[in-house]
Amino acid sequence: MSKQNDKDFVKDITKMEDDFAQWYTDVIKKTDLVDYSPVKGFMVIKAYGYALWENIQSYLDRRFKETGHQNMYFPLLIPESLLNKEKEHVEGFAPEVAWVTHGGSEELAERLCIRPTSETIICAMYSKWLNSYRELPYLYNQWCSVVRWEKATRPFLRTSEFLWQEGHTLHETAEEAQTETLQMLDIYREMAEELLAIPMVVGRKSDREKFAGAEATYTIEALMHDGKALQSGTSHNLAQHFTKAFDITFQGRNGGLEYPHHTSWGVSTRLIGGVIMVHGDNRGLVLPPRLAPIQVVIVPIAQKKEGVLEHVTTLYEAVKAAGIRVKLDDSTENSPGWKFNEYEMKGVPIRIEVGPRDIENGVVLAARRDTLEKSTINRETAVADLKEMLDTIHRDMLQRARERRDEKTFVIESYEDFKHKMINQPGFAKTMWCGDEACEEKVKTETGVTIRCIPFEQEHLGDTCPFCGGKATQMVFMAKAY
Amino acid sequence: MSKQNDKDFVKDITKMEDDFAQWYTDVIKKTDLVDYSPVKGFMVIKAYGYALWENIQSYLDRRFKETGHQNMYFPLLIPESLLNKEKEHVEGFAPEVAWVTHGGSEELAERLCIRPTSETIICAMYSKWLNSYRELPYLYNQWCSVVRWEKATRPFLRTSEFLWQEGHTLHETAEEAQTETLQMLDIYREMAEELLAIPMVVGRKSDREKFAGAEATYTIEALMHDGKALQSGTSHNLAQHFTKAFDITFQGRNGGLEYPHHTSWGVSTRLIGGVIMVHGDNRGLVLPPRLAPIQVVIVPIAQKKEGVLEHVTTLYEAVKAAGIRVKLDDSTENSPGWKFNEYEMKGVPIRIEVGPRDIENGVVLAARRDTLEKSTINRETAVADLKEMLDTIHRDMLQRARERRDEKTFVIESYEDFKHKMINQPGFAKTMWCGDEACEEKVKTETGVTIRCIPFEQEHLGDTCPFCGGKATQMVFMAKAY
Repeated sequence: MSKQNDKDFVKDITKMEDDFAQWYTDVIKKTDLVDYSPVKGFMVIKAYGYALWENIQSYLDRRFKETGHQNMYFPLLIPESLLNKEKEHVEGFAPEVAWVTHGGSEELAERLCIRPTSETIICAMYSKWLNSYRELPYLYNQWCSVVRWEKATRPFLRTSEFLWQEGHTLHETAEEAQTETLQMLDIYREMAEELLAIPMVVGRKSDREKFAGAEATYTIEALMHDGKALQSGTSHNLAQHFTKAFDITFQGRNGGLEYPHHTSWGVSTRLIGGVIMVHGDNRGLVLPPRLAPIQVVIVPIAQKKEGVLEHVTTLYEAVKAAGIRVKLDDSTENSPGWKFNEYEMKGVPIRIEVGPRDIENGVVLAARRDTLEKSTINRETAVADLKEMLDTIHRDMLQRARERRDEKTFVIESYEDFKHKMINQPGFAKTMWCGDEACEEKVKTETGVTIRCIPFEQEHLGDTCPFCGGKATQMVFMAKAY
Repeated sequence: MSKQNDKDFVKDITKMEDDFAQWYTDVIKKTDLVDYSPVKGFMVIKAYGYALWENIQSYLDRRFKETGHQNMYFPLLIPESLLNKEKEHVEGFAPEVAWVTHGGSEELAERLCIRPTSETIICAMYSKWLNSYRELPYLYNQWCSVVRWEKATRPFLRTSEFLWQEGHTLHETAEEAQTETLQMLDIYREMAEELLAIPMVVGRKSDREKFAGAEATYTIEALMHDGKALQSGTSHNLAQHFTKAFDITFQGRNGGLEYPHHTSWGVSTRLIGGVIMVHGDNRGLVLPPRLAPIQVVIVPIAQKKEGVLEHVTTLYEAVKAAGIRVKLDDSTENSPGWKFNEYEMKGVPIRIEVGPRDIENGVVLAARRDTLEKSTINRETAVADLKEMLDTIHRDMLQRARERRDEKTFVIESYEDFKHKMINQPGFAKTMWCGDEACEEKVKTETGVTIRCIPFEQEHLGDTCPFCGGKATQMVFMAKAY
């Protein structure tokens, strides 16, 4: 460690303009969010990274419970025969699951897959449990890890194992299922804005891009610094696809047997990748205050001078008592300058510096991570000022992210214009589309760009699909995506 | 559901005196804690059961963080070669792990096991990370599920998959590791008393019973209604067994390379089985108040009469505002009598009944689940009275559990006496022991009874080991165990 003290950490992070992918990798490694494990594609989420996930969990779990959901835990392993029950689902997932073939020293009679998602095992249980319309709705969620055997992986964005939550609900009517699907999407959108300071484009997925087995998939999509989109959360209206395949029935109000209507919805540790790529800069992480494990770090200056440590300790206690997640770094092996770099890289929203002269003057110096602005605040009002500053930082970060996204969002004139812009100024292309899957497929093959969503807020930009010349039926957001 | 309304639920639960194992199974099924899944030995933890686990998690996570620990997440899958690194460990666990042999459509070059516990993968990472004594201690914990391929399973007590936490720490000195091992054991003991209202016998495991790879294992042991013991939590001092096998080194204070000292400690969903078997009765669950998902249930009587629903709703809001987990059951499809049975079976600590006459008299009726006592409390002071009553129930439940355990704890005169008592009045046998593993093995083979622990609080009961006639070296607690 002592040797590293002299390093200029900023120099160790590749500039994002030079190589965005390398910048991303540098940031997550240098800030100790994750590490690679001995199993390819499987990551260790280290303490600082896991604390981000804990804050996301805590926010969402509260929102889920406020809207009447409860948590359950379903088995990690799913028999092959169950996975096979819903045709589109098995086609979507079977190529990427991990198979357990032996338990102890015995070969299993039937292979078991590690859940890639839990619709099948949960539907098998719902089928056993549900009797009457009086028991509906079923509003359940699960926090767990899932495994999808990925060939090319990147920490948080695409890993063979990831942590997530998956909600699975049953409803008496199609209307209620649709309301639930959109309610949960809205909770995700609000979580992104209120917690992550990330503005989302919300809408429906095209049929080509929807979940394997869904009637309709809804999505929140964020735009990264490099102009690529990140699908950040999805909510699926599964209609009766699974409930019929799994023979889930209930006695309806009129006495007859009916199939319930079904939804599922999830977000994962992928969100952390989004936070890094929306807010980060060439100095490292920039964490939104409500998500940050450490919201304020206090660095004493000339801490050996009499009175300094006592003073900062009193300040620390006061800030902590106000419910702010604060850290006092009074370690002696690192210089204040080293600490400034370290916490800047780690994205701590506010750094407080206090030295003998500040104590004399009754002030502290506060440095904002997001703008790098420094200001002097009165020691007397410091706690209230810090609270306000954290709120301001959140608002400013959300606003700047919105501005950056809007700057990278463009209307296209033609397919040629689209291809040109996607190479020279990548971002969200707003365009009309014919609605034909073949047209969508062709664009993807030729450009690597996909329809991210058919936004709820439609605009009429023209009558013709720029890709095939056919009649335009809807406006879509398109982008390259992670 | 409506047909079940008329059932007398109590009758559906086998009496514990008649068949304790069946009583246990009946209780967990009827109270909707778990269900069997399509994969043998894998359980679904349903909402009411999972809520118990959430309360355990919340208590322990707070205690872990207060003592400086942070959470991480390590991969689900461990390469066979890693599992094989610590000799005793692989011998202990290899026979009971699940093996992944295929990812997608490809056969893997090396088999991966689903973690049965994470010492090996975590040590592989620690080996990569640790450099200097300045970074120590490493104080990390993980919440996850683990898989051990069990032949005979029982919900919560022994399942092929279970939820747990596993702490894994590294220390500079042997002394610090020992202090940590005992600190975490003590947190477990306090959790059992403060949250679960279960008194524990604490001590060290005999070498025969210790964790595969440990230098010493410490345990908290509870006694069930049927006189069998439940190992409820363990804390292991792993010394340098794993750190040497995984070549984890650090630069010591004096410049040389050293191996750190290592601990691990865990509790699991098994604790829920303990709560059921320590506190439950022939009417079903009896939940300790601090653990109960619903602490108070309000059942209105004659709720169609004017003013009743308004009155109970106001009461509900007041109780809720006081931070009590309260439920108002104003459903119309079930009678108050049905509701009384239902919440009694589910172990809700306090049931409140309020009818028109109670409203007139300014009182509510409170029924305690643990003692089945009813008392009239003043509406004006109801909230404060309920808080106090919940505390009283906790204390009383802990006290009664301690008394029951002490009644079932006996000193033995001879091996014959031991065998006689273990059949006729099973419980904890307090006895001297020679310390010889062959003697311990013989007793287990002949009687099925094991040494549960060598308690910290030693008594001198005699000079001879009653099992082999050899010289007694220590006092032990012995019992049949789950």
